Parts: sequence; C-alpha cells; structure tokens
Amino acid sequence: MKPMGPIPPFFEANSDGQLCIGGKAAGDWLGDEDRPAFVYARAVIDQKVDEFRAAMRERVALHYAVKANPWRPLLEWIAKRVDGFDLASRGELERVGGLDLPLSMAGPGKSDADLVAALRKSVIIHLESEGEADRAIALAEAEGVTPKLAIRINPPFILKGAGMKMGGLASQFGVDAERVGPLAQRLVSAGADFLGYHLYAGSQSLSAEAIAQSQLATIDLIEKLIAETGIIPKEVNLGGGFGIPYFPNEKPLDINVIGDAIGKRLEERPALSDTRFILELGRWLVGEAGVYLTRVLDRKQSHGETFLTTDGGMHHVLAASGNLGQFLRRNYPIANASRFADAQMLEANVVGRLCTPLDLLGDEVMLADTQVGDVIAVFCQGAYGLTASPNDFLSQPVAREHLA
Amino acid sequence: MKPMGPIPPFFEANSDGQLCIGGKAAGDWLGDEDRPAFVYARAVIDQKVDEFRAAMRERVALHYAVKANPWRPLLEWIAKRVDGFDLASRGELERVGGLDLPLSMAGPGKSDADLVAALRKSVIIHLESEGEADRAIALAEAEGVTPKLAIRINPPFILKGAGMKMGGLASQFGVDAERVGPLAQRLVSAGADFLGYHLYAGSQSLSAEAIAQSQLATIDLIEKLIAETGIIPKEVNLGGGFGIPYFPNEKPLDINVIGDAIGKRLEERPALSDTRFILELGRWLVGEAGVYLTRVLDRKQSHGETFLTTDGGMHHVLAASGNLGQFLRRNYPIANASRFADAQMLEANVVGRLCTPLDLLGDEVMLADTQVGDVIAVFCQGAYGLTASPNDFLSQPVAREHLA
Repeated sequence: MKPMGPIPPFFEANSDGQLCIGGKAAGDWLGDEDRPAFVYARAVIDQKVDEFRAAMRERVALHYAVKANPWRPLLEWIAKRVDGFDLASRGELERVGGLDLPLSMAGPGKSDADLVAALRKSVIIHLESEGEADRAIALAEAEGVTPKLAIRINPPFILKGAGMKMGGLASQFGVDAERVGPLAQRLVSAGADFLGYHLYAGSQSLSAEAIAQSQLATIDLIEKLIAETGIIPKEVNLGGGFGIPYFPNEKPLDINVIGDAIGKRLEERPALSDTRFILELGRWLVGEAGVYLTRVLDRKQSHGETFLTTDGGMHHVLAASGNLGQFLRRNYPIANASRFADAQMLEANVVGRLCTPLDLLGDEVMLADTQVGDVIAVFCQGAYGLTASPNDFLSQPVAREHLA
Repeated sequence: MKPMGPIPPFFEANSDGQLCIGGKAAGDWLGDEDRPAFVYARAVIDQKVDEFRAAMRERVALHYAVKANPWRPLLEWIAKRVDGFDLASRGELERVGGLDLPLSMAGPGKSDADLVAALRKSVIIHLESEGEADRAIALAEAEGVTPKLAIRINPPFILKGAGMKMGGLASQFGVDAERVGPLAQRLVSAGADFLGYHLYAGSQSLSAEAIAQSQLATIDLIEKLIAETGIIPKEVNLGGGFGIPYFPNEKPLDINVIGDAIGKRLEERPALSDTRFILELGRWLVGEAGVYLTRVLDRKQSHGETFLTTDGGMHHVLAASGNLGQFLRRNYPIANASRFADAQMLEANVVGRLCTPLDLLGDEVMLADTQVGDVIAVFCQGAYGLTASPNDFLSQPVAREHLA
C-alpha cells in the first residue's frame, strides 16, 4: 500500500453511500457511454471566494487566472465573483468574450496577433521583455490606440517551498529587476497608459509564511521602483502561487496569514494607498472544486496484484498520472465513488485505458472493494485537468464537463 | 552548454542554408500566422520500411501501431507500405476507415462499445484479461458473429534497456503467462476464431541484442504454449519496442541483428512454419520522419543567459519538454532551421510560449546565432508528438500537420 493525498473536505456520501457532488450521485453524472466526466462544484468555488474575501478584506482584488480552467460555463460562474480575469493567450481572450471584467494578458511568447487582439480590447498587456515593449508600442501606434501596459518583473527572490519556482534565476518570464525602472520610464515617455507591475514568484506553495514573505518582498521592490522612477503604479499584480493539498501529508494553506501580512504592510505605506493590489489565483480557487469521474471496465489479477482498468486515463488527467512537472510520481486523492461510505479494504492499482504503463491513476492505493461498473473519483481536478492533458492521445472518447 | 540528442541523418540544408524537408525550406512550411507545424517526410518513412524489409525478409510481417501517429494523410501513405494496422481504440478504428488492411486492437480498457465496434469490422481482438474474453464472447454471440480473438500475454521476462518496461511484473497488460494456455483452450471451445498471441515486452529500446533476446524468449514461450495446448497459433505479434535516438550518445538500432536472430530461430522450427509472425512498429517507422517547426517571437537576456521564446511549446511537443515519462529532462535534437548550415555559436534556452517554466524545448543548447523570426526545428517528432500533447493548454493556436 502506498499513501495518497487527502480527499478535499468538501465532499460527502449520500444515503446510498455514493459520492455526492452538487446534490447528485457520482454515477448519475456519467451517462451510459464510456466517457468520463469532470464535475465542478460551484459551492466549493464560492466557499473559496468567501475565504479569500474574509482574509484579504477590501485591500486586495481577486483575479482569476483563466489558464487554470477555461471552460466557458465555469468562467461565467466565476465572472460574477471575481474582480478581473488574467489571460495567457488571445485564445483565452476569445473564451472570456462578453464577460464584462477588467482583463490583463501575460505570457512570454506574445505574437503580434496576440498584442493586436489585446490592444483592440483594451486589455492590460504585461510586458515580458524590452523587445515586446517595442512591438506593443509600434502596434498600438498602427492601431491608433493608447496601449495599456504593465511590466512583468523577473523577481530577484524565490518563493520558498513552491512546486514551481519562477524567480531569483535567469528566466523567460519578465524583465530582470534592475532593468525595470528604465523600461517603465520609457513606456511613460512613449505615451503609453502605464499601469504598473506584475510579479509571479512561483506556484503551488503550501507555506503561507513563504507566500507572505514573497509578497512583502514584492512590496519592498515596488517602493524601490517608485523611489527610482518617481512613478506610482496604478496596479500591482502580486501573482498567486496559493497551493492546494494534492499529496500525502500536505495541509491546506492558512491564507489569513497572507492577508494579515499584506494588510499590515500596506497600512504602513500611505504612498501606496491609491495603488490597486491584485492576487491572481487559479488552482486555489477551482482546483479542489473539480472531481474526475471514470468507470471501471475491468478488474483483473496479475502476479498477485489487483488492477482496476477504467474508461479514463492520463489523456484527461495528465498531472494525476505523474506526467506533468512531477519529479517522483505520487498518488493524488482517489476513491471508489460508488462506495464512498465503505471501508477501504482493497489494495489496487487504478489504471487508465491507454496502452502505456504511464497511464497510472492510483499506485497500490486502498479503496472500497471495487467491481466492474463502479465509478472511480480522482480529486483536485478543477485546475490544470482536462486542458492540461493530451486529449487526443490514442483517440479515446473526449471527457464531458459539468457544473454542479 | 548542455548536450542535445543527435539530429536524424535524413535532413540537409538547401542552398540558402535553410533546413530542407521534402524539397521545401523550413520557413516555407510555416504560414504567416503564429502557428507551428509538424512536417512528416515521406522519404524517411519509405527508407525505414525498406530497412525493415531488408532485415526481416519475408519471414516477419510489418504492422503499423496507429497510436504513434494517427494523422489520416500519414496513415494513407503508410497503408500502402505495411501489412496491417494495430489499433489501441475504436477511435483509431474510425481513423483507419476505408484503408484495406488487416486490423487488430489491443488496450487494457476496452469497453463494450470498443468490442462491438471491433467485432463488426472483423478486427482481431487482443484480449487483455479473462473478464474481457467473457465479454467479447457474449457480445459476439449477441452480434451473431464469430469473434477473431488473440491473447495478449503479460511476458514473464523483461526487455532489457527499454525506455518503458512492460514485462516480468504485475501489469494491466495481458494475461499472466501461466493462465494463457487454459484461456486459449477455453476460447477454442467457445467456438471463437482463435488467432494466437500478442506479447509486448517494452518500448524505445536501442539494444538490438536485448530486443532479439526478448523475441527469441517469446518464440520459446509460444512453443511451450503449443506443447501445453496442442494449438498452433495462426499469428504471433512479437510486439515492437524498436527505439530511435533522442538523446546524447544514443545510437541507431541495428535491426539486422534482430532479423538474423528471428530468421535463424524460425528456420529451426518447422512446426511454426505456418504461423505468421508480426512486428508492430510505430515510433521506429515514423518518429524520425517528423520535424516540429516553430518561429522565434522574442530574444531576450536574463541574468546573463539568452532566451528564445517561440510560438510553439509543450502543448504540441510534450515529450520534448521532458514531461512525458522522463525521469530527468534531457534535450531532444533542436536546431535553428533558418540557419541550418551556420556554425553553432549561440548558447540559448529555447522556450515555448506557455506561461509555465515547464515549457522548455532546449536547455542551454548551442544554436546558430538566432534572430526574431527565425524558425526553430525540434526533431524526432513524427511519433508521440501532437496527439500525445495537451493541445488545449493555455488555448494557444493549434499546430498544422503536413506531409513532405
């Protein structure tokens, strides 16, 4: 038996003992076809938004990072609850079309087509290099618009304990800190609407103290830039990096620690009182809301081990198979959703239907005794799930998505 | 500087110094849009088929494993050159529709819909478990057809040095060897058209000796099964596992070693003279034929390093970014296709356009001096490229595919 991550505390069994999502039993979310489904629980998203608002009060705005999950019905639900959308492509700009919220666009490889699309929709462009700044200014002139520009800073510090570090190093993201001031002055001189700064030090951190430190360091850096340039930024996007527990022994983040630290620091800085501070969250807002449901097609024995083959797999949940940025594969939280109330008495390997040994969803995990036809739930699939997976691999059926 | 894998020896520069694929310069394969392209060189595939035929002579049939690359124009080209298609899903069965070749279907998670689709098209079903055998027989009876069945064996030995091992262990693939004989007899008794066996011991091996040993061990196992059951198989699919060089110091496989070993053994075994032996190849046939082309959108400096940001990335070439089954990330062969004849004088990091540090295509690689607008080529992208990648990740433009 190998350990698995903690099942998010938002889900319970119904009176039949089935996992219940949004008042509906797991099996009822799946049709008769051999097509798995992602179910996103709106109530969980709402609970996370409430948690954010309580911790950050009015001082920090909440943006949603569309890349985490760009499914349109989910975006429509979230649009009413957040203060802006952060985009990573012009495809995402199309996906949020008609949802009336402030927009910004980051990303190290913005083509001219991306920049023009952003300029035409008054999207704030987070510039990643001096070269991109030159192109944005030239294209804005050609379009006859005043560009809304901000600078993404390659942070001179790291976010400790982050799943992915994005600072303190040579990077494709942002402009090295020492070149940011001169670039800001150049943008202002060029007549751009200069909004401010964006800094992203890492993602999937479960240390509130490390995130708070990183954000205080960001505020220090912004003050240095004000002293250097004389420009008070209208906006500062502090990044995100709020993690969720995926693996054994991981604990939820106490975001009050972060809210208190930022709130206290900003109270002491009246010069920043007109600057809008933003946190850009994706995974933390929607990750735990999503459950991937897949049916067991076969149960077999091999060399004394039990294998449960499902109709899903890594083509839908790549990260849960251990193939997206993990160094060593570990088990995501997984359960028999048809027998969610039953004791875990079966040690089994849960595999997908792809013809590759990489397609492993549960490695020697403990489950309720499982039969062919039962539904398996893989949790923490609301962010970086379906769109972060190779959907066409082996030409298997496409997964459905549902709001619950 | 970090090493990269060897550029496949099939490609040269044209008189302008550009990488030439199928008589056309790299840049001409890309349009004006910010959309990368996969270009598959037919001549390389033909050369591989010729190499196979010369090494295996008439004794071993050549099947194409459609999962390696299921793009329809490529399948049409290959259909005229191979002796059968091996399928991993009913989606692949749809993709090969109308191409008149013998078909078989393997895969650990076949749903009833998969089995019915295979039965209706007279596809040979490679059974992965006793439970699947029961379902196939019952569904064939309901359909009023005689099922064509073979048994996939979980090999009792491993393919040494394979990138992925699929034998000698508990596995979701196939039936443990000691249960194969009784199952074969049960299939014959049930009135099925029993074809024989399928055995796949691993993939991406670059040791011809190890592959040959594994295939001789398979022939031994088949002889034991004949002795045990009295059933002479009509077909034996020996699997594949022929690797191609992706990484530094890897050398091409000498498949004559394999052909000689199989040929000699089969000459000594007149009892097997009516059995059709098959090798099922995907990666080895098409992998080196494919080149991924992507344009440089930005060149920037950060902390003394050069970054080249392209309009492509891991959403098209997941394996080349190190996120598909690799333990430690290593560089695939990569080059500046616009200056393919130039000396490599620039050390650079080649990144994709996604907003994640995972999107790394070349880590401190040596390239010709590179400017914005140049085309970067990532090689060995004919197999497990586009369909094995998370195409929708960050909603970036879809890559094109071309036959060259």
